[in-house]
Amino acid sequence: MNDMTQRGSPVHRRSKGSGRWEGVDCLPYKEDEKARFKAISRQVLFSDPALAAELRFFEVAPGGFSSLERHQHAHAVLVLHGRGQCLIGREVRHLQPHDLVTVPPWTWHQFRAGTEEPLGFLCMVNVDRDRPQLPSDEDLANLRADPSIAAFLRDP
Amino acid sequence: MNDMTQRGSPVHRRSKGSGRWEGVDCLPYKEDEKARFKAISRQVLFSDPALAAELRFFEVAPGGFSSLERHQHAHAVLVLHGRGQCLIGREVRHLQPHDLVTVPPWTWHQFRAGTEEPLGFLCMVNVDRDRPQLPSDEDLANLRADPSIAAFLRDP
Repeated sequence: MNDMTQRGSPVHRRSKGSGRWEGVDCLPYKEDEKARFKAISRQVLFSDPALAAELRFFEVAPGGFSSLERHQHAHAVLVLHGRGQCLIGREVRHLQPHDLVTVPPWTWHQFRAGTEEPLGFLCMVNVDRDRPQLPSDEDLANLRADPSIAAFLRDP
Repeated sequence: MNDMTQRGSPVHRRSKGSGRWEGVDCLPYKEDEKARFKAISRQVLFSDPALAAELRFFEVAPGGFSSLERHQHAHAVLVLHGRGQCLIGREVRHLQPHDLVTVPPWTWHQFRAGTEEPLGFLCMVNVDRDRPQLPSDEDLANLRADPSIAAFLRDP
């Protein structure tokens, strides 16, 4: 359990020269083996019984990407470092440090790092949330009908 | 209402060379006139009916400080830039970029910027939360009995 209050100290420092925090476990991105993703790690920065939301940090290595998915719950994202692109619904957008990204309910989304550096971002989610839904072949064909989305979804 | 979904675009960029985001209002730190604070602004980065928590950004100018207060709700803080100190309960801690700070329920806390640069931090809170309680003269005397807390609480 990544509960800061259980970790003893009120302050946890980022380890020098790394994308990791002291006392915070670095976890696999997902346990769902059906989801397609590449080169991404997860750290739960805040998960506390007193909080209705969690704050997680994801780091995507160059060329990596998060799962293409949608769900009822929303995401609130803040880019901490690096550059890349995201798909939100049918919009492909460039990302740079400190960008804010809203993923509304039931919106297809994916985050991709650029080729030069890792993309690190915070993601706030409700503690009580549904499981992500993965795209069917029909969903994918529907998304790829848009050339900008097809280019975004190309695998490296 | 600082609701990103109402602001139209899924992505909001930080304005160059400033601690402000495009499309996000810069607000007074507090409306409570009894609270003592100095040189601090507030931006609500995410406040959405689909989210059980809000993510706010506070910027404290050099020499400024947040209100000394406590409440039932918890805070989850991540320092984005600058240096300073915080009081959490009876612990005074130095702060630097990317530090994580947990403020448990009913814990006195205050954030102070150093003298050199602004201190900017994110703060996640539940949407449903109680109003902060300010210290009585007795609470202050109790805190100031500790020399390190007395030094921290000195006004500039």
